[in-house]
Amino acid sequence: MQVDSKAIDKFLVELLTEVGTRLREDSIKKMSVATKKNRNDLVTNFDKKTEQFINGEIKQAYPDATIVSEEGYGDLVKDMSGLVFFVDPIDGTMNFVKRGDNFASMIAAYIDGEPLNGAIIDVMDNEIYHGGKEIGLFINDRKIDNPKNLPLVEGLVDVSAPMALANKFAVQDVIKKSSGFRVYGSAGIIFGHLLTGKEVMYMSYLAPWDLAAGRVMCEAAGMSVVSIDDAPINMLESQVVIVGTQKVVSEALKTLKTR
Amino acid sequence: MQVDSKAIDKFLVELLTEVGTRLREDSIKKMSVATKKNRNDLVTNFDKKTEQFINGEIKQAYPDATIVSEEGYGDLVKDMSGLVFFVDPIDGTMNFVKRGDNFASMIAAYIDGEPLNGAIIDVMDNEIYHGGKEIGLFINDRKIDNPKNLPLVEGLVDVSAPMALANKFAVQDVIKKSSGFRVYGSAGIIFGHLLTGKEVMYMSYLAPWDLAAGRVMCEAAGMSVVSIDDAPINMLESQVVIVGTQKVVSEALKTLKTR
Repeated sequence: MQVDSKAIDKFLVELLTEVGTRLREDSIKKMSVATKKNRNDLVTNFDKKTEQFINGEIKQAYPDATIVSEEGYGDLVKDMSGLVFFVDPIDGTMNFVKRGDNFASMIAAYIDGEPLNGAIIDVMDNEIYHGGKEIGLFINDRKIDNPKNLPLVEGLVDVSAPMALANKFAVQDVIKKSSGFRVYGSAGIIFGHLLTGKEVMYMSYLAPWDLAAGRVMCEAAGMSVVSIDDAPINMLESQVVIVGTQKVVSEALKTLKTR
Repeated sequence: MQVDSKAIDKFLVELLTEVGTRLREDSIKKMSVATKKNRNDLVTNFDKKTEQFINGEIKQAYPDATIVSEEGYGDLVKDMSGLVFFVDPIDGTMNFVKRGDNFASMIAAYIDGEPLNGAIIDVMDNEIYHGGKEIGLFINDRKIDNPKNLPLVEGLVDVSAPMALANKFAVQDVIKKSSGFRVYGSAGIIFGHLLTGKEVMYMSYLAPWDLAAGRVMCEAAGMSVVSIDDAPINMLESQVVIVGTQKVVSEALKTLKTR
């Protein structure tokens, strides 16, 4: 199947620009809702309507593509053949609800199972990380260099809170060998940190739509994206994933206890 | 002793504005230094020269005041009588070195032991949180309202990484009752989150200069600032401190195991 990565990139950037505008408006509306229950209902509603909007735009531009998405408006995808889009309308929902910052919207395109394009918008900062192996990586219009291949001792690591606090897989041994531990609570935001070298590793249990865009871009930036048992990533299932510089992921895999 | 809180506020904002400009330049210079050792020496140097600059300006404007500061250019302060300034030139040094964002510079003024003025600059966002009980609270020129007195279940909490990972004082029981756990790695940045309601609690082992400005402003915003054994805060010693909404701190003190 022939696809034009540059055209998809342009499409994704325009789409996420519009999504960003809508979500910033939603974030302001949300603040005026008094009760917690009403606020939660409203956010669920924002999440669903954002996904419906994104999926609708994809279907219009790429009618033959299939869509894997969080809120249930996608397709029932059983294999990765052809052009497949992954959609996470609001990533970091708790940050959206409680903080009003550090949340993202993410879309990725894969072709016959291969990572092609990724795009993540840091909604409140209005910065779109986008690109892929063929076209390079950008923040908005600015091309970015690959981050340095730093070792664990030289960088900050972000591990999902439940995993870190429970010391699953002895992950605290990895954290202790690093420069320090951070928890930002949104995969999309953390992928931005990895792409700009602010952090050197992220480890979490991720659904396909949590991982898809970040995987495309981190691999394009020369980083490693592996499942914890070092098996190939399965884009149709959730799994524990380690993303980081090649040096850090190699060190982490040696340190983690997976059985 | 007569002091003018409004005049001190103006002085602190002007001083931190200049400090912010200098530190943003330093942050760019730092990136060009190749080796890790040279980079660390450079950062130590930035830290010291920033403190020397701040302390010099304070001494000129308030010659009779005493100064408690991190890097050793302050006074040997044995009691809190008179006008006492607390200075933390770069708070979140690891973020400064590794990320280039989420670090702060903080100054506070206390009079005869009582919190008077606080000022914290989020250097890269160029936002100055400042004010006190007498004059109210501001971000740059904008007056801010006090955050809501939310309970633990409705907010995000930030606990220092070593404390959270080791489950000191059974703090994970507090974390589990909250909406979620975040780690930002800079007291100054986190005080900003508390003042704007993005997080509802911060718990960490803090030195006087880590705590001084945040304490002034969080107390002025109606929040609680307590030591873990519920003893009065001692501004001349380091201690484990809990800062948060009144509801959250009360819940935390009931949940934490301190003996």
